[in-house]
Amino acid sequence: MDEFSFIKSIKQQFYRQSTLVKGIGDDAAVFRQPFSDIVTSVDTFVENIHFRKDTMKPFHVGYRALTANISDIAAMGATPAFYLVSIVIPTTWCDAEIDDVFRGMHTLASNYKMDLIGGDTVSGSELTISITVIGYARKGSICYRHNARDGDIVFATGTLGDSQAGYYILTNPGDYMDADYYIRSHQMPEPQVNFASYFHHFSRVAINDISDGIGNEAAEICAESNVSMILEDEQIPISDNYHQFLPELQYKWKYFGGEDFQLLGTISANDWPKLKKVADSIHIRLTRIGRVFTEDNQHNVYLKKNGRKYLLPKKGYTHLK
Amino acid sequence: MDEFSFIKSIKQQFYRQSTLVKGIGDDAAVFRQPFSDIVTSVDTFVENIHFRKDTMKPFHVGYRALTANISDIAAMGATPAFYLVSIVIPTTWCDAEIDDVFRGMHTLASNYKMDLIGGDTVSGSELTISITVIGYARKGSICYRHNARDGDIVFATGTLGDSQAGYYILTNPGDYMDADYYIRSHQMPEPQVNFASYFHHFSRVAINDISDGIGNEAAEICAESNVSMILEDEQIPISDNYHQFLPELQYKWKYFGGEDFQLLGTISANDWPKLKKVADSIHIRLTRIGRVFTEDNQHNVYLKKNGRKYLLPKKGYTHLK
Repeated sequence: MDEFSFIKSIKQQFYRQSTLVKGIGDDAAVFRQPFSDIVTSVDTFVENIHFRKDTMKPFHVGYRALTANISDIAAMGATPAFYLVSIVIPTTWCDAEIDDVFRGMHTLASNYKMDLIGGDTVSGSELTISITVIGYARKGSICYRHNARDGDIVFATGTLGDSQAGYYILTNPGDYMDADYYIRSHQMPEPQVNFASYFHHFSRVAINDISDGIGNEAAEICAESNVSMILEDEQIPISDNYHQFLPELQYKWKYFGGEDFQLLGTISANDWPKLKKVADSIHIRLTRIGRVFTEDNQHNVYLKKNGRKYLLPKKGYTHLK
Repeated sequence: MDEFSFIKSIKQQFYRQSTLVKGIGDDAAVFRQPFSDIVTSVDTFVENIHFRKDTMKPFHVGYRALTANISDIAAMGATPAFYLVSIVIPTTWCDAEIDDVFRGMHTLASNYKMDLIGGDTVSGSELTISITVIGYARKGSICYRHNARDGDIVFATGTLGDSQAGYYILTNPGDYMDADYYIRSHQMPEPQVNFASYFHHFSRVAINDISDGIGNEAAEICAESNVSMILEDEQIPISDNYHQFLPELQYKWKYFGGEDFQLLGTISANDWPKLKKVADSIHIRLTRIGRVFTEDNQHNVYLKKNGRKYLLPKKGYTHLK
């Protein structure tokens, strides 16, 4: 069963709790309190599926696992506050390495004043880290995937494909430009919490974090909002020396590479200049990469490349493959 | 690293979030909202460590995994509301079996009007279910382990040792009295949510759920409250046909067996009769099993048996061993 079928299969037909605002089906669930919305999600990170010990030190394993979870909270326009960690530890990992995993999480958590409030450990055959993150959002200001509307601007933060480029460099040793930058993008990607904390100033923003590749994330927003998108290939933000890699790899990584933990979003054309100003003021690279439309009565993602229009496949990132 | 050392090693020196009331160190963490306290904890359940496929059907695996988590919330005097499930699925489990695992969780969750609000799945080598439960408590009415005081009554709900008796029957086939009852206690134990929902009527109750055996749970309350306890062997509540098992097994299961998910608690002698009346009114078996004292300036758990006083070892339940 793939992730999509799985989520569909476990989704309840209806919810019972009156405080629940959003159940399964976005980057995180949302329940309401008198003065804020509380946002929570879980994500799991398994050795040899999500990471390899030869491309990540234990410190990076912890850092990277928590990044993925915090990124889900940022993608709701919320601020992370707490995390709980369940860890399965095989005999091939010593206590000092596990300490380093927690040091990696702790280092990233400290940047966002997050507290570790629950933990559980069992022995098992492969290192498995499952993290639940809980965050706060201003009441009613969540950036749902269903918020996209006809005519919206599509934007992305940062540059795309860099995490996969870093993994490629680590597994294909050679002489590369900016090797350290790409490796860091793979081992210690930064969740976009800071930028996300400004979204509540806007009336309507749809956001997905780019964990599985922009192709997949764009398709999710389109499906939930019942709109289509057209992305402009030449506008997709890439790093300065990204062109050093094979064109096929560039294409694969930037559209389907995943794990960059940048944000893909939509906002009304009216609000776009103001959002761009916010990004500039906090030194976040923000790029307009396409637009939302509904004329086709579909929910497709198109790619405009060399003057032609293609359907962008929905395939997401498949880990370490 | 054992669970105790692990928890100690990951516990933060200080917390940063102003809404946090209790971090790591009780059955669940607590953070405050304007009109309620929110309680959360994580627990993990691994094949061949916490359960065996020959003594539990997939439905029971799900039911039992969620029981453990809900029980932690009940042990805070809180009511469960939401759960998130991370599951690692090996190729030896088919889709229909995984559906049954979720059906088991869903059946129990429905009894308490809980909603599944987050999920994550990955493939891996052994079935691992990690559940985070979130619940609500009345503001300021949490039943912390540190609430026990000199002179308190020590009580237990239900009967103890039955889950281990059920596991024994399943793995040592033979002719037993009430076999179905014991097997059900192992496969589908009930968390004590209903009784726990009355604790807020009392000014001070200390509670631990009996997941690791009463010896261990009593020791945790003593350590956190800086008190000692004496338990009366003949008062420990056991089921009608418990005496059919070897005396050594009876002793082992009722003190160190764990997984009964009954509650062990303390309450002032003044409030005890009122608590007993509540239990009677909702048909919960509630037994006074000992008392809290501080004369020894220690935090020990003693067992009075056949007129003699022994130190009860702190050893907890070791899964499937």
